[in-house]
Amino acid sequence: MQDFPISPIGDRVKTTNMGQLKYSGLYTDFYELTMAQGYFFEKKAHQRVVFDYFFRRVPFKGGYVIFAGLQDLLEELVSFTYDEEAIAFLSSQGFKQEFLDYLRQFRFSGTIYGCKEGEVIFPNEPILRVEASIIEAQLIETLVLNYLNFQSLIASKTARIVHAAGERPVSDFGLRRAQGLGGPQASRAAFIGGVNSSSNTLAGSMYNIPVNGTMAHSWVQSFASELEAFQAYATQYPESSVLLVDTYNTLKSGIPNAIKAAKQLKRKGKSLKAIRLDSGDLAYLSKKARKMLDDEGLNEVSIIASNQLNEYVVQSLLVQHAPIDAFGVGTEMITGRPAAALDGVYKLVQMDEHPVIKRSDNLEKITLPGQKQVFRYTDDQGLFYADAIALVHEDEAPLEMQHPTNFAKQCNLSDYLAEPLHHLLMDGGTIVHERVSLGDIVAYSKKRLSQLPAEHKRLDNPHVYKVGLSESLKTLRDEMLDKAAH
Amino acid sequence: MQDFPISPIGDRVKTTNMGQLKYSGLYTDFYELTMAQGYFFEKKAHQRVVFDYFFRRVPFKGGYVIFAGLQDLLEELVSFTYDEEAIAFLSSQGFKQEFLDYLRQFRFSGTIYGCKEGEVIFPNEPILRVEASIIEAQLIETLVLNYLNFQSLIASKTARIVHAAGERPVSDFGLRRAQGLGGPQASRAAFIGGVNSSSNTLAGSMYNIPVNGTMAHSWVQSFASELEAFQAYATQYPESSVLLVDTYNTLKSGIPNAIKAAKQLKRKGKSLKAIRLDSGDLAYLSKKARKMLDDEGLNEVSIIASNQLNEYVVQSLLVQHAPIDAFGVGTEMITGRPAAALDGVYKLVQMDEHPVIKRSDNLEKITLPGQKQVFRYTDDQGLFYADAIALVHEDEAPLEMQHPTNFAKQCNLSDYLAEPLHHLLMDGGTIVHERVSLGDIVAYSKKRLSQLPAEHKRLDNPHVYKVGLSESLKTLRDEMLDKAAH
Repeated sequence: MQDFPISPIGDRVKTTNMGQLKYSGLYTDFYELTMAQGYFFEKKAHQRVVFDYFFRRVPFKGGYVIFAGLQDLLEELVSFTYDEEAIAFLSSQGFKQEFLDYLRQFRFSGTIYGCKEGEVIFPNEPILRVEASIIEAQLIETLVLNYLNFQSLIASKTARIVHAAGERPVSDFGLRRAQGLGGPQASRAAFIGGVNSSSNTLAGSMYNIPVNGTMAHSWVQSFASELEAFQAYATQYPESSVLLVDTYNTLKSGIPNAIKAAKQLKRKGKSLKAIRLDSGDLAYLSKKARKMLDDEGLNEVSIIASNQLNEYVVQSLLVQHAPIDAFGVGTEMITGRPAAALDGVYKLVQMDEHPVIKRSDNLEKITLPGQKQVFRYTDDQGLFYADAIALVHEDEAPLEMQHPTNFAKQCNLSDYLAEPLHHLLMDGGTIVHERVSLGDIVAYSKKRLSQLPAEHKRLDNPHVYKVGLSESLKTLRDEMLDKAAH
Repeated sequence: MQDFPISPIGDRVKTTNMGQLKYSGLYTDFYELTMAQGYFFEKKAHQRVVFDYFFRRVPFKGGYVIFAGLQDLLEELVSFTYDEEAIAFLSSQGFKQEFLDYLRQFRFSGTIYGCKEGEVIFPNEPILRVEASIIEAQLIETLVLNYLNFQSLIASKTARIVHAAGERPVSDFGLRRAQGLGGPQASRAAFIGGVNSSSNTLAGSMYNIPVNGTMAHSWVQSFASELEAFQAYATQYPESSVLLVDTYNTLKSGIPNAIKAAKQLKRKGKSLKAIRLDSGDLAYLSKKARKMLDDEGLNEVSIIASNQLNEYVVQSLLVQHAPIDAFGVGTEMITGRPAAALDGVYKLVQMDEHPVIKRSDNLEKITLPGQKQVFRYTDDQGLFYADAIALVHEDEAPLEMQHPTNFAKQCNLSDYLAEPLHHLLMDGGTIVHERVSLGDIVAYSKKRLSQLPAEHKRLDNPHVYKVGLSESLKTLRDEMLDKAAH
């Protein structure tokens, strides 16, 4: 299809229902509401708290995560309210009139700091810091987790596949296997993770992601012959035909027929865009196909491969020098298989100016108390070296950081350039930068990934990126643990 | 919380945006639209076709799949249209005016036969049969696959977990790890798969699924002491308190404080509903907790366990006689980890009264031609024995069936009671049974699962359920293959 974008690629051009919940106030775990009512009647409604969003483990045994879902989340928070239908439902569940009156006027009026969407992020560092009344902060917990965990998962999985594909374009073919209405959000996240286009028409319309498509076996089957099917498609789409060559027999029928159709197009001064291989041994078939096309002088016809691809299959195909020009990736990318979820959590770290901590027998599960900032340190080549988590009242980026669990380990940072990762995102319930375009997010993510040293991007056994604590933060945590133990 | 259902549990009480797309016509892979335009200009718009929906492999190495998502799909098909915004988007993508005029008046007017929602289904048998014009059938493909693949995946995963839990209730705690807006659909599917309740408030409101909730660590942290936090919650919810006992130290602090709060409630004539264990060794801690509670005469206080549960962990806990009364299950259930997707496909099987076939070198990937019915055979104990796929024009259920790929294998069915699995679901675009309640679907699924012999329900290496072909269908397929090969 010809593509006539009506606004810059990746700009949100309109909001459909898919992107906007009608009752987002009910998009919450029920216990958030029972706790909220409890806080309300315990007269704690106005206590100020700070919650951190962070994750503990990189999925896919990878070295990093791409932060995604932020802009959708911020827009959803603005409409996080309870209308009369929602109130009636909650009333039917036994909530009390006085609390329901409070919910009637509820809106999220908190302040949020955090990383930019598209940032390369690492385990245990705070990604988002929510400062609000305890009820507000509690009620939005599920929405925060649901949106950020999911899109960050898909963006991260996609980045691995795109990394494996090198310079070759990757297209999202996943909607049919996506998890229901999560599909358009997944396509958005895949775009942040680096795909060039999507088959998801709704996502294209919502987010102005370039959409494209080829043909299905049913097109071929619906004609009297494969050749006729190819000729008809090429007649309809002389500029953009991609012919699916495996309906009957790829080498004996599909490619020879595609070659005939391509030559007919060529005689009209047009050219066949590509053939698509969707079954069989893609390394073997792509080599055969390339040779058959080239032998007929059809060097300009590309080869697109699809069929249960993931980062490992793509890597293996390219190691074998399979002459594949583009990949269509569906199921594994769009569901983040096999991880299927990012383990992000949302933890209370401060109450009324007092840092709080969640103890655990497992040192890695202890939360980091207080309001925190994250600094990223870059070397003179512009490459990321380490991140340090510090308390926000520390005036400057620390010049040394402590290992979070190994008491004997420090790391000197004085040779590196520090930059704060947390920015003000929402101020008193208002989004600070009203419309960060998806195109800008994609560009930012690409740039940041290019600054991550290659050894952290390896598919297997990546080098672990250093994340440490400032001396002050470590001291605060250890003193609080110590005090709690006595 | 007290639960005052305003309509029978599982009835859909209202439709929110979550359940209804505004632009469902765009909820499609882009190639469906390019093919549709191609059919339109090739003057094929009025050709009648039949597509089958089926899947090839049971996820989770299981023995069966629970069919779910049907009612949501049928309701969505009714609103599968293109408004002016959608038309404008498609126009910007190069679609032609005459075709866009056709889409303006588009509605799905086809006829659909298929299994009832909640049915126990098996690989390679047609689950849904869509009969429509080629454009209509093609445009809805992605929606059919997206809705049915997803909800069937989650219902099937849930059924495994519920099976492992035996008589103990299982609650859905998954929304925070669900795949974005797929969350409410996943909770609906989990209800079909057998959970008793959900934490997902929106799903509760949309589908009248019982909702419930306990408390988070943040509630406990927000009070000066754990005991104070427990007492406050018990004061607010004297009938339904579930206390989370692992914020500080489960055995030394959490359970002793819960016991104090429980005794205070008891003096007021109330009782603590349960404690919840959310970390550590659940077998060990539940045994310790049960003894501590019983020693204080608190036998009525239940123990709920959560934390990264799946069917194998639940089974292992019960094999160890862990005294756990109910399970809260999140991530793995609500994302269908590790499969993350059901591999359902949608294949053309007939064009204008002529059966069609998709050949493949792999015998299992060859489609079954023509309009087909599925018969299920039940023994005199009411247990399922086998399914046979037949052509709809066969007058009666076959008394013998053929193995689909092993030419030497037949199976005699004359001793079994046959029942057709396909029913008319949508007639000329109109839903036949306007509102099948979720409660009825759940009851049907439970009944059907009870008819599936135990050896097919084993978590590992289940006995493979027999699915065969009628003699006529097998002959048709083999003749078509034979003809195609010459």
